[in-house]
Amino acid sequence: MKVGYVQNAPVFGEKEKNFNQIRELLKGVKADLLVLPELFATGYTFMSEDEARELGETKDGKTAKFLKELSNETGATIVGGFVELDGQNIYNSSLIVSKGGVIDTYRKIHLFNKEKLWFTPGDKPLKVYDINGSKIGVMICFDWIFSEVIRTLALEGAQVIAHPCNLVMPYCQNAMITHCLENRVFDVTANRVGSEKRGEDDFTFTGGSQITSFDGQVLSSAPSNAPYVSVIDIDEKKSENKMINKYNDIFKDRRTEFYKF
Amino acid sequence: MKVGYVQNAPVFGEKEKNFNQIRELLKGVKADLLVLPELFATGYTFMSEDEARELGETKDGKTAKFLKELSNETGATIVGGFVELDGQNIYNSSLIVSKGGVIDTYRKIHLFNKEKLWFTPGDKPLKVYDINGSKIGVMICFDWIFSEVIRTLALEGAQVIAHPCNLVMPYCQNAMITHCLENRVFDVTANRVGSEKRGEDDFTFTGGSQITSFDGQVLSSAPSNAPYVSVIDIDEKKSENKMINKYNDIFKDRRTEFYKF
Repeated sequence: MKVGYVQNAPVFGEKEKNFNQIRELLKGVKADLLVLPELFATGYTFMSEDEARELGETKDGKTAKFLKELSNETGATIVGGFVELDGQNIYNSSLIVSKGGVIDTYRKIHLFNKEKLWFTPGDKPLKVYDINGSKIGVMICFDWIFSEVIRTLALEGAQVIAHPCNLVMPYCQNAMITHCLENRVFDVTANRVGSEKRGEDDFTFTGGSQITSFDGQVLSSAPSNAPYVSVIDIDEKKSENKMINKYNDIFKDRRTEFYKF
Repeated sequence: MKVGYVQNAPVFGEKEKNFNQIRELLKGVKADLLVLPELFATGYTFMSEDEARELGETKDGKTAKFLKELSNETGATIVGGFVELDGQNIYNSSLIVSKGGVIDTYRKIHLFNKEKLWFTPGDKPLKVYDINGSKIGVMICFDWIFSEVIRTLALEGAQVIAHPCNLVMPYCQNAMITHCLENRVFDVTANRVGSEKRGEDDFTFTGGSQITSFDGQVLSSAPSNAPYVSVIDIDEKKSENKMINKYNDIFKDRRTEFYKF
């Protein structure tokens, strides 16, 4: 299958401008799976709950509409982040969109830093989506530091992890090498670039979007400071074989009776 | 505390020779914790269960005696690998030795490759030892690929992981950066160097013994092809603070209700 990412440079609060940048970046691109960054249309550095709410939408809002169009134009399943409103709650979510329709949202279960001040922690299970015969697990950014997240998605049968990010720390890209290797899954980490200086915060996002293979090889790596698109071919079925040699199936070899949770 | 490792180049089956090499390497060294490789006195590449049994010992054998002497000479707690006999069972174990006495053995719970043909999988829990006020967790080599092992030891309060290895794959050293970071523990990985061509196997051990800090920094890294000793100072208490910023305690933030095991 063809999997890829868009690494964008959003302008805070300017959804139409940010949609247009992504449309430009994806002109003529066809794929089976495209991952966009966390909060790709709004920017990241909110200063209050009200501000997050103001830029929030339901899963039938204009960001969903944009992704539905994008899925029709590219032929791809799209996973990308948005501020999700549901009643009084505000979630840091990803939309999962395919063939012009919203399949689901994933609500980030591990909130980073001040996200805790405006977002509600995700309240839905980690989930693997069987789309056009491929099994796609979804997580968001800081979820990466909890090894149980990718483990859970891999145990649920994920072949490819779709991982929208707004990374400000330098560790995730390297960690994905280990996580992919230990779970024998592919990962598409879509990060953003640029800086946001708002209130007391001044974040620079680290780019370096990355596609990693089931055996820990980095198949695609974006620059740290510029928008970028990459689409590559992978054989996602390879992730189904958990044997790393004649004797070791790294899932069957787990000694869960000795693990503490 | 002062922690370190010995990276040796054992000759298969020549215990006295291998003891002597380590004595030479440690001449004048003082430390609080010293980690020796997996199976440091016997070599690794057995060709039969009988051969493993022949080189095996109880926890009161000559390898234990050697480590007891070493602990007296260096002042250190020593963790190093040996073939443990217990009744009819043969384990790939580590001795934990302090102040001239054996504290315990850890029996490797995840056997690699042909180890499954001669060793019995470990039957005792992963454990953290409180020795002279420091909390030391023990695992062996291939245990590293199961992220639950370090997680379990960290949740049990380990400050430092003692990790005897005979690594033949190139992944572990980099993985320890991620595992230490995600658990905020220190790790001392002691690997061996040299090659063993025995029967149909021809292994080259990758050296690169490594001390990694709670924040993912590599504090010491040995060459890939020569014996080496390193002892450094660490502040093991730093591993007790699981806060990575003002808002995130990466242990309290775990959402275990969503993890599958």
